[in-house]
Amino acid sequence: MVPSFIYAICFLAIIVAFAFAAYLYLWVKQQKAVNKEILRVSRLIKDGANTFMAREYKILTIFAGVAAIIIFLILPQPIWQGKFLDNLSMALAYIAGTILSAIAGKIGILVATLANARTAEAAEKGIKPAFLVGFRGGAVMGLAVVGFCLLGVMAVLMITSDASILLGFSFGASSLALFAKAGGGIFTKTADVSADLTGKVELGIPEDDPRNPAVIADNVGDNVGDVAGMGADLFDSNVAAMTSALVISQSLTGYEQAGASMVFCYSALGLIASILGIASARIGKNGNPTKALNSSTYVTTGIFVLLSALATYLIEGFDWRIWGASTVGLLVGVVIGLTTDYFTDDSKPIVQKVAKASQSGSAFTVLSGVSYGFISALPAMIGIAVSALVAYKLCEPMGTTYALFGIAMAAVGMLSIVGMIIGNDAYGPIVDNARGLAEMGGLGEETIRIADELDSAGNTVKAVTKGFSIGAAGLTVISLLGAYMSEVNATLASLGRELITGFDIMDPTVFFGVLIGAAVPAVFSAMLILGVDKNAQRMVAEIHRQFREIKGLKEGKPGVKADYDKCIDIATTGALRELIPAGAMAILSTIIVGFIGGVLAIGGFLLGNIVSGLLLALFMSNAGGLWDNSKKYIEAGNEGGKGSKAHKAAVTGDTVGDPFKDTAGPSINTQITVVSLVASLLSSLFVALSIF
Amino acid sequence: MVPSFIYAICFLAIIVAFAFAAYLYLWVKQQKAVNKEILRVSRLIKDGANTFMAREYKILTIFAGVAAIIIFLILPQPIWQGKFLDNLSMALAYIAGTILSAIAGKIGILVATLANARTAEAAEKGIKPAFLVGFRGGAVMGLAVVGFCLLGVMAVLMITSDASILLGFSFGASSLALFAKAGGGIFTKTADVSADLTGKVELGIPEDDPRNPAVIADNVGDNVGDVAGMGADLFDSNVAAMTSALVISQSLTGYEQAGASMVFCYSALGLIASILGIASARIGKNGNPTKALNSSTYVTTGIFVLLSALATYLIEGFDWRIWGASTVGLLVGVVIGLTTDYFTDDSKPIVQKVAKASQSGSAFTVLSGVSYGFISALPAMIGIAVSALVAYKLCEPMGTTYALFGIAMAAVGMLSIVGMIIGNDAYGPIVDNARGLAEMGGLGEETIRIADELDSAGNTVKAVTKGFSIGAAGLTVISLLGAYMSEVNATLASLGRELITGFDIMDPTVFFGVLIGAAVPAVFSAMLILGVDKNAQRMVAEIHRQFREIKGLKEGKPGVKADYDKCIDIATTGALRELIPAGAMAILSTIIVGFIGGVLAIGGFLLGNIVSGLLLALFMSNAGGLWDNSKKYIEAGNEGGKGSKAHKAAVTGDTVGDPFKDTAGPSINTQITVVSLVASLLSSLFVALSIF
Repeated sequence: MVPSFIYAICFLAIIVAFAFAAYLYLWVKQQKAVNKEILRVSRLIKDGANTFMAREYKILTIFAGVAAIIIFLILPQPIWQGKFLDNLSMALAYIAGTILSAIAGKIGILVATLANARTAEAAEKGIKPAFLVGFRGGAVMGLAVVGFCLLGVMAVLMITSDASILLGFSFGASSLALFAKAGGGIFTKTADVSADLTGKVELGIPEDDPRNPAVIADNVGDNVGDVAGMGADLFDSNVAAMTSALVISQSLTGYEQAGASMVFCYSALGLIASILGIASARIGKNGNPTKALNSSTYVTTGIFVLLSALATYLIEGFDWRIWGASTVGLLVGVVIGLTTDYFTDDSKPIVQKVAKASQSGSAFTVLSGVSYGFISALPAMIGIAVSALVAYKLCEPMGTTYALFGIAMAAVGMLSIVGMIIGNDAYGPIVDNARGLAEMGGLGEETIRIADELDSAGNTVKAVTKGFSIGAAGLTVISLLGAYMSEVNATLASLGRELITGFDIMDPTVFFGVLIGAAVPAVFSAMLILGVDKNAQRMVAEIHRQFREIKGLKEGKPGVKADYDKCIDIATTGALRELIPAGAMAILSTIIVGFIGGVLAIGGFLLGNIVSGLLLALFMSNAGGLWDNSKKYIEAGNEGGKGSKAHKAAVTGDTVGDPFKDTAGPSINTQITVVSLVASLLSSLFVALSIF
Repeated sequence: MVPSFIYAICFLAIIVAFAFAAYLYLWVKQQKAVNKEILRVSRLIKDGANTFMAREYKILTIFAGVAAIIIFLILPQPIWQGKFLDNLSMALAYIAGTILSAIAGKIGILVATLANARTAEAAEKGIKPAFLVGFRGGAVMGLAVVGFCLLGVMAVLMITSDASILLGFSFGASSLALFAKAGGGIFTKTADVSADLTGKVELGIPEDDPRNPAVIADNVGDNVGDVAGMGADLFDSNVAAMTSALVISQSLTGYEQAGASMVFCYSALGLIASILGIASARIGKNGNPTKALNSSTYVTTGIFVLLSALATYLIEGFDWRIWGASTVGLLVGVVIGLTTDYFTDDSKPIVQKVAKASQSGSAFTVLSGVSYGFISALPAMIGIAVSALVAYKLCEPMGTTYALFGIAMAAVGMLSIVGMIIGNDAYGPIVDNARGLAEMGGLGEETIRIADELDSAGNTVKAVTKGFSIGAAGLTVISLLGAYMSEVNATLASLGRELITGFDIMDPTVFFGVLIGAAVPAVFSAMLILGVDKNAQRMVAEIHRQFREIKGLKEGKPGVKADYDKCIDIATTGALRELIPAGAMAILSTIIVGFIGGVLAIGGFLLGNIVSGLLLALFMSNAGGLWDNSKKYIEAGNEGGKGSKAHKAAVTGDTVGDPFKDTAGPSINTQITVVSLVASLLSSLFVALSIF
């Protein structure tokens, strides 16, 4: 279906990406790592992360096994209706989706737990070498995710020649993302909140103090939440964007081949652009790491725009309107990132205003943060709305289906530079860990200061990449809505029934779906936050037990060690236990609404889910980032500095913001994708069996 | 158009309501009021409330004057296109809408500031007489609002015979509600927060201590926010529900007369049911005031269902399906109220869980409150969704327009008992004030205890009435969406253009509107909360100045009085100043989206606005009520009681919740209605002039 030279470009990009990732991995591995204490702690972190992932993957195996059997039995059509091979392909594609995403996550953890110690030691020599270790460590993850993503989508399509089977692959990626992102998010915040509550608040010992039994779990959390979780999240978005573009391209009569080729070609070019962007990253001797991270993003963006223009010019059938849609998507993604930065950067007025409000007490920290968090959602919502509208209108002259394809290509364009984005994001936990290791390894004040500077850049950039990833998820799910309608109409056509032309909000079944769909992300995030809450209570009890029962631990007697494993264990078990009801609630409500209101209600349900999901995700991520940075701003000596009344209030804000920005907010993306895919996959059942 | 015997029933209901209200007013006035200090303070509160309202009405006169001129010039069609009389009617209807709502608010304040002192003194004799004074005082407001509402709608329709002109009347009511509810909400929370911060937190003096310069402003706030504001809000919802039902009834070919008759007849019967419910309210000597308030609501509900069934049976043309729709609306309203109660009543588990979480610090109070607040939105959203769906499906066999009319009648049904609801709601600030007056008048512990019990019932019932009013607003705006489409199609028909059949979410212009519409309530509430914040800072500075400059005030030297007026002045000026940008933002974004995306984008905009508005309004109102009551639960001696760590955390929760539940949450209703009416009114302009 897709011409072989396009596949060749993809293969080439994948091979170069893997080779480059391997080179970076070896380069990181070769860096100096000699401090015994650092190596010991770094090993503890690595083991902890592996424990969590092993447990997670075990539960996931059961979940995915059951899901694969269900898929095999009923999707795309009930197996007793005859298409055995289609069902088998779908089930296998599903399993492949989970496995490829899991491997990418595993690689990310591997390199991140290697890079953290080496970044800490490199910081002894200055910011330049330390930055490079952290950045290149993150880049390995970025390249692995995008490489596996492209490889998987291509393989499924080459083998089955049916883009609908990709929905199974995409659902596999989403299932994993749900576990990795929401589970990892609960893990990381359980550990973070418990460590802060018992360490900083109760005992007054610094962050990363080795006496605190939760300190290793906290560092593990950064890796499983931000490296593996964020990677799985963007793997999921990227697969979903490609899938929906490819599903819609099947309905572009006469243009199926060119449409699908554009999807693959642009994705491959995005990967190449990311490789060049990563290779070009540089920082001066006393350079600013935030600037270095951002400038490599701009370089990647620029290269992609040029390469994709070149490809559109050279390759027959590639259309400038569709190129325009993809470029608009990418540019809007960058703009969303920048506006997020405005609301969460501590050199900008908003963070400073919240810090100032903290002087009147914690209620005002919370109120002002909530308010600016709500306001911060507006530019991103406008950005997503405008890019969808422009992409549609640009491609509309080619036909209505092309216009939908345009929106999907805007999502593909926005996600083209995702390799770079994941790299920047994974940089965050690596340097965050490095800071902790530098402290625990006793590397001296100057090294800790450098590590701090790298960490602060990580936090700033994380806000930007989060905004970007929510924007990308927004556009992706809009195009998934298109894919859903394509699936519904395919079923209706096969039954000889009248096709649907859309979802009219004046239809009360659609409206019914919209209202319920809108409530789901709110309930989902509430369940995750309450999960963190409950789990943190368990862990705090365990920390108190250790302080009580392990003699000499509290006082820091040499040779007395905390039982770190127990805390990791609690975080792991609890995270997976709290995650499952939330995920089940989202999936079950989709199924219930579908069986009550049918395919029209589900159309509304998806819309409500997308809209309120985007609003809440943006609100929570930005408010969380805002509180985090206003605490740091105060700690830097403003508004009374550390220990002042304002600081105490800011700590409350930060604690509220932690599960907002690292658990609930970014998990909503995944919830939306999961729900959209469940809807598409079950659409034929909803057509057949529904009350209204 | 409507037969005269229906109008006769309405007139009769209005006359009985006004006569009964006059009787209750005189009864309240006759109650004992002899304590000099109480009378003095009560007079201060009355004067303060009148100052605010005078200032508010002055600004409103300018605003309404300008709006009336604009309406006269361009609505329903530009005046240069010839229909001078229509434009004049519209402008006059608009002015009538503001004036009637203002008069009702004025009456409410009059009786509330009379009843507060008398309730306090009656409490010396026991809970039974005190309850009656408070309840009957509130009932006057309820009867006045519904009476004026019915009178106004009837008058406009009798004079113009054109339901579209009612949109002008409804917009007038909304304009007033925006000022009264959002302005009053900012006022009341400015005073409350400042009084708490300086009194309870800084000085450790009790609530309602006369040394605090903000204490009168705080009591004034209860009246202007909860009596006048809530009254204007429900006046607005009630008018909007009747208006949209009447606008849609114009398109019921052959059924216009019966449809309109049902709207009027049901509204009149609801008023009669409320009168009977109010008259039947009783409480035993040691009775439970919450039960008494709730049982009179149930009595009213039961009477209305019976009366409306009787009318449907007796009157020719009245249809049982439409009666069913109205009954479903009413029952769902009651259910929403009950679920709200579950989340906010301190004898139920949720409030107790939040109180327990407070033991770990204020961040956990906030996190658990936010989480349960989000979850609490779900049952109400389901309730609204189900009632709209059932109402539609019930009436669908009669035709699609009947189905839309069914939804509008569900809203009319839900709002039929609004007289009772407003009465219960206005009871709250009366007894709240009475509690303060009992303290300031030195009426002794037992009297204060009784006043406290009455106050606590007021808080519980307030949560229920708020849930109810949000539910009612939800159904109302759904039917306003129907009214909007009717208006658009009327314009398109007059231009000979193709009619629209709905708003398809797959159309990117609609989708564009949805995303932006969804962001507006978030930004609107953020602006109001920040407004409270800013205004409270001004007032705190003033209180500090008074403590510094008025010698002996802090120490409570006899004869030294605080300058209460200055605080009232700050609250008044600030409230109106902070409100205007938020209102302008909502109206302007409607206009901008309309001129960019045209009528389809506005359809989406309204949907997004309704959905996210409902979600946020429910979240904020319920979370606020939840925090308030968990603070009270701790103060009653649980989880460590007053002064404990948990109590401090709960105070933070309560302070966060105050502007949530009394400023932003309930103002979102009004914002949605205003935006819906602006959209309907300007629809012909959007048809004529838009980019896409």
